[in-house]
Amino acid sequence: MGRRLVLTTFGESHGKCVGAVLDGCPAGLKLEEGDIQGMLDQRRPGQSAISTQRAEGDKVEILSGVFRGSTTGAPIAMIIWNRDQRSTDYEELKTKLRPGHSDYPAMIKYKGHNDYRGGGRFSGRLTATLVMGGAIARKLLGAALDVQTHSYVSQIGKVAMGKRFTEKMIPDIYGNDVRCPDPEAAALMRAAILGARRDMDSLGGMIESVTTGLPVGLGEPVFGSLESDISSGVFSIPSVKGVEFGSGFAGSESTGSQNNDTFVLRDGAVQTRTNNAGGILGGISIGMPLTLRVAFKPASSIPREQPTVDIKSGKDAVLSVKGRHDPCVVPRAPPVVDSVVALVLADHALLGGFIGPVL
Amino acid sequence: MGRRLVLTTFGESHGKCVGAVLDGCPAGLKLEEGDIQGMLDQRRPGQSAISTQRAEGDKVEILSGVFRGSTTGAPIAMIIWNRDQRSTDYEELKTKLRPGHSDYPAMIKYKGHNDYRGGGRFSGRLTATLVMGGAIARKLLGAALDVQTHSYVSQIGKVAMGKRFTEKMIPDIYGNDVRCPDPEAAALMRAAILGARRDMDSLGGMIESVTTGLPVGLGEPVFGSLESDISSGVFSIPSVKGVEFGSGFAGSESTGSQNNDTFVLRDGAVQTRTNNAGGILGGISIGMPLTLRVAFKPASSIPREQPTVDIKSGKDAVLSVKGRHDPCVVPRAPPVVDSVVALVLADHALLGGFIGPVL
Amino acid sequence: MGRRLVLTTFGESHGKCVGAVLDGCPAGLKLEEGDIQGMLDQRRPGQSAISTQRAEGDKVEILSGVFRGSTTGAPIAMIIWNRDQRSTDYEELKTKLRPGHSDYPAMIKYKGHNDYRGGGRFSGRLTATLVMGGAIARKLLGAALDVQTHSYVSQIGKVAMGKRFTEKMIPDIYGNDVRCPDPEAAALMRAAILGARRDMDSLGGMIESVTTGLPVGLGEPVFGSLESDISSGVFSIPSVKGVEFGSGFAGSESTGSQNNDTFVLRDGAVQTRTNNAGGILGGISIGMPLTLRVAFKPASSIPREQPTVDIKSGKDAVLSVKGRHDPCVVPRAPPVVDSVVALVLADHALLGGFIGPVL
Amino acid sequence: MGRRLVLTTFGESHGKCVGAVLDGCPAGLKLEEGDIQGMLDQRRPGQSAISTQRAEGDKVEILSGVFRGSTTGAPIAMIIWNRDQRSTDYEELKTKLRPGHSDYPAMIKYKGHNDYRGGGRFSGRLTATLVMGGAIARKLLGAALDVQTHSYVSQIGKVAMGKRFTEKMIPDIYGNDVRCPDPEAAALMRAAILGARRDMDSLGGMIESVTTGLPVGLGEPVFGSLESDISSGVFSIPSVKGVEFGSGFAGSESTGSQNNDTFVLRDGAVQTRTNNAGGILGGISIGMPLTLRVAFKPASSIPREQPTVDIKSGKDAVLSVKGRHDPCVVPRAPPVVDSVVALVLADHALLGGFIGPVL
Repeated sequence: MGRRLVLTTFGESHGKCVGAVLDGCPAGLKLEEGDIQGMLDQRRPGQSAISTQRAEGDKVEILSGVFRGSTTGAPIAMIIWNRDQRSTDYEELKTKLRPGHSDYPAMIKYKGHNDYRGGGRFSGRLTATLVMGGAIARKLLGAALDVQTHSYVSQIGKVAMGKRFTEKMIPDIYGNDVRCPDPEAAALMRAAILGARRDMDSLGGMIESVTTGLPVGLGEPVFGSLESDISSGVFSIPSVKGVEFGSGFAGSESTGSQNNDTFVLRDGAVQTRTNNAGGILGGISIGMPLTLRVAFKPASSIPREQPTVDIKSGKDAVLSVKGRHDPCVVPRAPPVVDSVVALVLADHALLGGFIGPVL
Repeated sequence: MGRRLVLTTFGESHGKCVGAVLDGCPAGLKLEEGDIQGMLDQRRPGQSAISTQRAEGDKVEILSGVFRGSTTGAPIAMIIWNRDQRSTDYEELKTKLRPGHSDYPAMIKYKGHNDYRGGGRFSGRLTATLVMGGAIARKLLGAALDVQTHSYVSQIGKVAMGKRFTEKMIPDIYGNDVRCPDPEAAALMRAAILGARRDMDSLGGMIESVTTGLPVGLGEPVFGSLESDISSGVFSIPSVKGVEFGSGFAGSESTGSQNNDTFVLRDGAVQTRTNNAGGILGGISIGMPLTLRVAFKPASSIPREQPTVDIKSGKDAVLSVKGRHDPCVVPRAPPVVDSVVALVLADHALLGGFIGPVL
Repeated sequence: MGRRLVLTTFGESHGKCVGAVLDGCPAGLKLEEGDIQGMLDQRRPGQSAISTQRAEGDKVEILSGVFRGSTTGAPIAMIIWNRDQRSTDYEELKTKLRPGHSDYPAMIKYKGHNDYRGGGRFSGRLTATLVMGGAIARKLLGAALDVQTHSYVSQIGKVAMGKRFTEKMIPDIYGNDVRCPDPEAAALMRAAILGARRDMDSLGGMIESVTTGLPVGLGEPVFGSLESDISSGVFSIPSVKGVEFGSGFAGSESTGSQNNDTFVLRDGAVQTRTNNAGGILGGISIGMPLTLRVAFKPASSIPREQPTVDIKSGKDAVLSVKGRHDPCVVPRAPPVVDSVVALVLADHALLGGFIGPVL
Repeated sequence: MGRRLVLTTFGESHGKCVGAVLDGCPAGLKLEEGDIQGMLDQRRPGQSAISTQRAEGDKVEILSGVFRGSTTGAPIAMIIWNRDQRSTDYEELKTKLRPGHSDYPAMIKYKGHNDYRGGGRFSGRLTATLVMGGAIARKLLGAALDVQTHSYVSQIGKVAMGKRFTEKMIPDIYGNDVRCPDPEAAALMRAAILGARRDMDSLGGMIESVTTGLPVGLGEPVFGSLESDISSGVFSIPSVKGVEFGSGFAGSESTGSQNNDTFVLRDGAVQTRTNNAGGILGGISIGMPLTLRVAFKPASSIPREQPTVDIKSGKDAVLSVKGRHDPCVVPRAPPVVDSVVALVLADHALLGGFIGPVL
């Protein structure tokens, strides 16, 4: 992932570890493990009643690329050792296909050689590696350009946030375990998640992301548009099935005169009165906030009984997925979306010369 | 664009030509200009009352990579010479910013060196280069794997297609100039477009795409997911602001037990009863039809007067965009979406060894 | 070829054209066809008694990426239309394998689909596409950083240049048709080439390249070393079989105390007394001239009879290669080596932030 | 490094560890740590009187991508924890520039943020990460295609191997600590190295590499030639200053009729009588042994006093490099060259469809 700031990830849900190597980070960025740990903690499970009871410690260790508290320009390798795995939960899944899960195509693609435990390489646990890289990208954007990315839960199941997001609400995002900055909506969302758990079912939802402070000119025409690169990254997150920028799908139902953001001069700077474009025109940032919305499907692993196929016997079967799964993964996703957005923007900031090779 | 099947594009709306180089196409594919021309004709403007009156001839010429009627394995360069340009239409736009258009970020990014005529590199005309590559990818997928991609207009403005798409409707897609296989909806869509033209305004809409015949196993986990690569390609199309796969945004409002596609054996083959996943699990094809929906914003260039800024004088201004623009670009977009989907799938078919280096 | 400055080439020796697309060139570089034509003329055959009698016109046409005399930041496509081909010369070669030529592996690799006429994609004619890109890279390096690359013939067969190259000799490089700045050696080299032609044989030789004006810090450690990237590019030139930097192979026979270039301060700048490193330490430029030497094998296509195999009959055969081939390609190679070096250095100058996205 | 089989490396000489991630290895290859350890042991220092006394344990640990003794298709991360570092040896080098060493360009490029201890990212220790990847590539080539790569020392300083290498000598390569399969030459080389150590100096040398069993057709024309990719990889090895294939530099002094390898049928297979091409024509393998020769400069870190510059005081200085350095690194290089060659060939075997995504 990335052209100048390249993230390579490795590891499996139930293997020894998960890890990432971030290559291309400029030299001279102050960085310590705490910078990454803080963002990892935001996605960690086992934090509240609405998430899985797995207690992932998730202590990140920086292995290379940092010397005397600063990045050196060399690849930054990071690792989290896995603990608290219960592989035996997964034995039944070797032959009974989990509906909505990658088990089936993975088994066919790799002819059975894949590590199926906990989804292996396809596990949501791998999003920790996105956050490792994203935490650095986010710090880099802040330090070099004062660019800030904030993502939050805007909908769980059918419960949508009532208020319109404003910058003032940023401190409230992590004020509750749903990660929704509207406390009233958050309470309803929480109830919905607990209801799904009771029903042995799961819920999906939506994340919104806002980035402020972007200069004009990030992004490349055609194949390197900001929307291309961000969407590509966002669809690397398990369970994502849709993404839209600015007015998105709703905008496609409007007219040009309604949807166009007209230009205006404010304090000598060109701005737009509205932001239906989500801060991007022609694939390039225009200096307005970059906004996107990401749709997560409900988690596929549910305790409720589902009809399926036993691939070994070649017969119909019934499956109740065991193991400790989140009834709703969306509250854990804001730092992951933040990470993807920050990685892409930092990559383009380097590509466009907005950040140099040494800070 | 692409890893194994790499598309490079060049040209500007009002320059000499637009062109593309497709590298990585296997040797031995029967190919002639007519194969590409047919798909280009589907996106050509000047075909009916609902599109621009520019009469782009758009005759493609193959420059290399084909010998005695077959591909050779060498890069395939293709070109369309530009004609019928009226660059004078664009003089006013040098200083007055077009709302909703890439003119402004392009001017800042390239410090005025960009070719602003007709949007230059950002023009919708460049989608012809996607189609050049896509036509070859589509032929390759058909010849090697019997994979077929079909895209159609499912909504224009607020007018949505009433019927559910089935394979029987494929021949009807190009049966009308709206490219909607539901003739009744097409008539309403056509009226809506003509209404927008009358109002000196524009309309957006949606394209749906269905691909059949895919084997299980195309796509890579994490960064090379089918959704990542397709969405990245789709956002390279000007005016696209949203994309969703399968049940997409609507699916995020449902529960796991509703949204999971349960597995079933049909004639010994594993299939799913529903297709909320859009044929993709864990980023990998599962042998079901691949479905996606693409949201296009209304075209930004409208004759109606809009407030804007004159960047030269630093004052507010009023702009009425002249030139011959489509009141709705969506009916021209199905072959472009087809092209992007085919390019990505062919790339992954090569990557996964489903197609070899020589046919 | 390239990371930031990406060259894509296309075309065949006996097809319609050869061409190149250079993507990533900064906006704002003054550029006209003459800039490229001048360097193409230096490699053109048909210029003297010592080269092939093919009269390639080689008039380059810029198709995109230049507007009002300056680059726009968009991909620059360039083309040369082919003329004066005699494809019939190549019929015998369809079944009789040319010793030392790519015909055989190409036929096997592409199962006979490759364009075998004149070597097709493997032809030395394709070096014109390297020069198209290289001429722009060279102009960019000169304009932005005052970096100058000069290559010359240092040996033909066993005839080596007597004098040591100095910057004063630069104007003499193109003073004779051998492209050797030592006129006495050039005369002997010329005689050797004419002798080889008389003998219906061919000669190899060596090119040396010197680049001055480089700042300290171009190049990346490990996989993106200047030596890695330059050698990779140089081995893209047909007939190249060896490359060395600085003292190269000879240096490997010396000791550390002999081969180390000791540092010295000159006018406050760190320099080295000798330049056995060829201007590169750890893969990175050190501000000293970058020097390399490239070994070209003798051209494989010779009129002299050679034993070979007739692949159709499966029998031994005798082949005398017809067509108009150079008895020695080395005098045409200096602009090609210049091009490769300039492309790599410009790529790294962009990568390292020494040149920005707009001049 | 690589297109399909991508090697990412990380770590520093005196940091916590060195490591590598190999992405793209087919699923189903039997692999255990011992496969990698064996090859790492061949490059390990501290093995004999002729190398550094650092006792690097170099125990490799596989972190991911292997499950139940086979590769899974997921990225394979590997790590070696560093031990036995003496960073204090390097304090003087912070200001006094080591002649012939990357310290100076690294300091300028990274403005002092680089980890200078032991060369940091530029250290020869990083070649262990090439071997990690190379050991897997080598096993893959053997298992899937019976392709075997063997490299050996052919020259140390001015002492060259007397005998011509044949396959029978393969078992003798690691029969002595010089890694030269000619025992008599090895004894002389050993004496030369001990002499250099006594003189507080260092020696360079040459490695030859032979690969057998290659099918016809590996490699791509122009930018992906085998020579391009192998040379690029070889120049990633510290101290390499030259590379040649087949007859290389010597071949450039011969004539076409001498240097061309004439074709002959042997048991129905096309072969060549000689192998001046080193098994590569037009950048593509021809089924003959692939041969190359690599020139290593003498190690730059020598105890002998050398004049240099103190960058802090801006004055001339004298430096005697302390620390435990090899008087000659060449005997440790054969497994590194093997690794680079194997990585490139495996990459091309995957690219060309000679090896599929699952074994």
